[in-house]
Amino acid sequence: MTIRATFLVAAPDQPGLVARLAGFFYERGLNIVDAGQHSDREPKSFFMRLVIELAPTTDRDELQRGFAAVCTALSANWSAGFSDLLPRVAILVTREAACLYDLVLRQRSGELRCEIPFIAGNQPDLAAAAESFGIPFHHLPVIRETRPAQEAQIAALAKEHRLDLIVLARYMQVLSADLLARLPQVINIHHGFLPAFQGARPYLQAFERGVKMIGATAHYATAELDQGPIIEQDVARVTHQMDAEELSRVGRDVERVVLARAVRAHLERRILVEGRRTIVL
Amino acid sequence: MTIRATFLVAAPDQPGLVARLAGFFYERGLNIVDAGQHSDREPKSFFMRLVIELAPTTDRDELQRGFAAVCTALSANWSAGFSDLLPRVAILVTREAACLYDLVLRQRSGELRCEIPFIAGNQPDLAAAAESFGIPFHHLPVIRETRPAQEAQIAALAKEHRLDLIVLARYMQVLSADLLARLPQVINIHHGFLPAFQGARPYLQAFERGVKMIGATAHYATAELDQGPIIEQDVARVTHQMDAEELSRVGRDVERVVLARAVRAHLERRILVEGRRTIVL
Amino acid sequence: MTIRATFLVAAPDQPGLVARLAGFFYERGLNIVDAGQHSDREPKSFFMRLVIELAPTTDRDELQRGFAAVCTALSANWSAGFSDLLPRVAILVTREAACLYDLVLRQRSGELRCEIPFIAGNQPDLAAAAESFGIPFHHLPVIRETRPAQEAQIAALAKEHRLDLIVLARYMQVLSADLLARLPQVINIHHGFLPAFQGARPYLQAFERGVKMIGATAHYATAELDQGPIIEQDVARVTHQMDAEELSRVGRDVERVVLARAVRAHLERRILVEGRRTIVL
Amino acid sequence: MTIRATFLVAAPDQPGLVARLAGFFYERGLNIVDAGQHSDREPKSFFMRLVIELAPTTDRDELQRGFAAVCTALSANWSAGFSDLLPRVAILVTREAACLYDLVLRQRSGELRCEIPFIAGNQPDLAAAAESFGIPFHHLPVIRETRPAQEAQIAALAKEHRLDLIVLARYMQVLSADLLARLPQVINIHHGFLPAFQGARPYLQAFERGVKMIGATAHYATAELDQGPIIEQDVARVTHQMDAEELSRVGRDVERVVLARAVRAHLERRILVEGRRTIVL
Repeated sequence: MTIRATFLVAAPDQPGLVARLAGFFYERGLNIVDAGQHSDREPKSFFMRLVIELAPTTDRDELQRGFAAVCTALSANWSAGFSDLLPRVAILVTREAACLYDLVLRQRSGELRCEIPFIAGNQPDLAAAAESFGIPFHHLPVIRETRPAQEAQIAALAKEHRLDLIVLARYMQVLSADLLARLPQVINIHHGFLPAFQGARPYLQAFERGVKMIGATAHYATAELDQGPIIEQDVARVTHQMDAEELSRVGRDVERVVLARAVRAHLERRILVEGRRTIVL
Repeated sequence: MTIRATFLVAAPDQPGLVARLAGFFYERGLNIVDAGQHSDREPKSFFMRLVIELAPTTDRDELQRGFAAVCTALSANWSAGFSDLLPRVAILVTREAACLYDLVLRQRSGELRCEIPFIAGNQPDLAAAAESFGIPFHHLPVIRETRPAQEAQIAALAKEHRLDLIVLARYMQVLSADLLARLPQVINIHHGFLPAFQGARPYLQAFERGVKMIGATAHYATAELDQGPIIEQDVARVTHQMDAEELSRVGRDVERVVLARAVRAHLERRILVEGRRTIVL
Repeated sequence: MTIRATFLVAAPDQPGLVARLAGFFYERGLNIVDAGQHSDREPKSFFMRLVIELAPTTDRDELQRGFAAVCTALSANWSAGFSDLLPRVAILVTREAACLYDLVLRQRSGELRCEIPFIAGNQPDLAAAAESFGIPFHHLPVIRETRPAQEAQIAALAKEHRLDLIVLARYMQVLSADLLARLPQVINIHHGFLPAFQGARPYLQAFERGVKMIGATAHYATAELDQGPIIEQDVARVTHQMDAEELSRVGRDVERVVLARAVRAHLERRILVEGRRTIVL
Repeated sequence: MTIRATFLVAAPDQPGLVARLAGFFYERGLNIVDAGQHSDREPKSFFMRLVIELAPTTDRDELQRGFAAVCTALSANWSAGFSDLLPRVAILVTREAACLYDLVLRQRSGELRCEIPFIAGNQPDLAAAAESFGIPFHHLPVIRETRPAQEAQIAALAKEHRLDLIVLARYMQVLSADLLARLPQVINIHHGFLPAFQGARPYLQAFERGVKMIGATAHYATAELDQGPIIEQDVARVTHQMDAEELSRVGRDVERVVLARAVRAHLERRILVEGRRTIVL
């Protein structure tokens, strides 16, 4: 199977960007099989995603060095991934099983192309679920006093397994700013339609306010709770007949799908973060 | 054509409510052609909508007196409407035409069963649109100093035309608590997905926060801005490619449909207000 | 916990139906906690769902005999279920895991109130999944020649376990009319938006036709393939960028949710079948 | 205001396409402000949309001749439009007003950037609506015997006004293959979710089949009825409570929005037709 490389570029907008980036690969005889781009007006910024097919003779290091040189000339940030190097993703959970099963089943079916070296939970409830998939489970209990030690364990596991991504699949703990600084990117699912219902118990808030739709939001975790760049959102229609518990049930269906879409976009290297926004190419 | 009467009832929950309300019409030989009900658990409340067909011999006054007696025994609030008495609805506008045209065309097509005795605008821009439909237009300009006088004009028009409902179709003025107390129910369309983006310029807020969906909310106007009971909401998917202006364009399509659905539900006497929520039967 | 009984009634429309049905329970001092109804105009038919709370002293047999007598007088069909008697549901599968996991997880979380006495597959692939949940798995392989024998096994299992419902969760075999006649109701999920893409490979059809949305349809299985009464449908937006495989992936997310909603509505006794349509109260 | 040019290209896929197309404009010092592309695998085809800003000194004829030369070398089809040359669009109607008003209001608000030189109807009902917008109205009645003559009138008007597009806004006549061959592209709105309910009375079909969602489809008209390339679709949820008339009402809201989106995509030169599919960039 042909190996593909995916390049993400963010640069100050300037004439000739597309021609120069596309030209770089054309000169090497490499075919662009997918491309997407976006320009922001204020500030004038340019974002591009390029997927190319490697030739059998392609020297990856040379390719990346050459691309780096072009990007330096354009004052551009860039990153690259290769289709034969699967990203390593850990899943953090508490008690709720739905998002965890959903992610693992999607990985098993090939929809989420990644490895899952471990699952960790601050509660032991989902150990059996992890075991049924043959994935190691780490029980990392936490109370206020042990939080620094528990977070150190998470950081150590992330380093040991050279994680590329952590997914909070209904992990009911806030990660400290200090921990986030030591981790790769972290995707969280918020069980509400941000920014409407921040904080705890969004479905109770939604019920009391009598909203007619509820939603879920997947975003990158940042030190500021529920304020990270939004990756994906969706909603479902609800009625006055539903109490807070039923809203929660409807919401879980939305959460799972929204989280899976966000993780997939990340794994396919489609997401660029620009301030508080994401560009999903 | 058979005349129908629609009864709305709200009562403390208690055994036998359905049997007694349905029995009232059965005893008079009147057929229930549509019914809906809902029970709230806390506090235990009961809501019902009953549509019956009048017989040629039905005495409406007697019917309402009799129903009132049943409701008194049940400590219930109630109201009734008759299909041959069209509600009288005024539309308040500023400059944007889409919602106004939409409402009038739906009334003309029979979808909104009401009379529209007048349209009023704080700007003169939509006078020609009103005229093209043969509906009187009142230009009621307002600046801070003239606001009490302008609101008095609105109240006077509402009284003169015995309005049953006022629709704010992108009327860019806040109605004072004092005015609201003198008007029939007022439906407003908020060009955002409440409670996410309250206040002004919701689309700019939505853009800057990078949301992936935008929405619109129709609610009854109350003295507390953007906090009235929500009647209807809907959303549309947006992307990073859309600037605030394009979000606004997408939003307008949602607004029109949401406002029309809310007005229709009101005209069909489907809405009961319970605190900050609506029950839409 | 209070036990609830749910009654479903279908009757020729006639005056006094609501009053008589509601009155039946009122006379016995039983509270109606939820009710829904619908009237068809042509032919004039009436459908009602009534949920009541049993009293500690309620004699179920007497209650059902009494209700049967009322229904006979009204020429009505009826059925009843009690909240402490869980319906028994078997799941039939082939190779795809997503719908199976989804149903079992929803049952485990309390969202689908039923027992699952067994899972059966014409392929052995999902035996381990069944085992991980502690549910017996029957491998029932089938080729053309063995089909009558295999169907006899299914019928025997359904009888042995006194099934109330069978769910085809991506079971890639057509059930014969003969078998359907020996089974309780069967819910199937069609991976297309019926009636648009009947038969095999709906996603390939959808791709070749260039549709912009794809969907899934849950329906009761009947002898006529893909023609049974539709219970639930939903769609997702797709683009020209998606090939048939990606359409299939998007479709799977819709399928799962649509199937779960249909099964839940059935278990809550919300569905009445009227010819080729369903009334979902 | 800067003038923009939009180029659409369809070519057999081959290495260096992006580099050569982007390079063409880079050499001339013209900035690409928006770009989209898509590759089909089978047959291997490439589609691209490029939006550039013209410089004050740009010679449009030279630009197009140069671009044509590049495209010839690539065996590519191409077309171009300029933002200061508004497309000329006629609207054909029968009796229903909603789609007509919707399109004209969107043009007036700047959402649809085009001229509307005339509206034509086979019924006279919408003449007053056209007049209220100051747009000439042609009443072109038609019966079976006069159809060739009436179609000749349509063709003559299209030629006289040098139309770029014709929109059938609920025009209840089928255009003959002969007429279609003499017209520019024609966009039609089908009041059903193609390919589910082709032909007449789709809402009655939908009701009788008991579907839970209805939709609308905008497509290019071809000689084969309801089989043209689909541009846009959307759906709305419906219930057993809605009769065919109410389905129709819900459907109208979907139709309007779907038709407007399709016309807008066409005017922005986003659509490439590939066999029976559209690529919407």
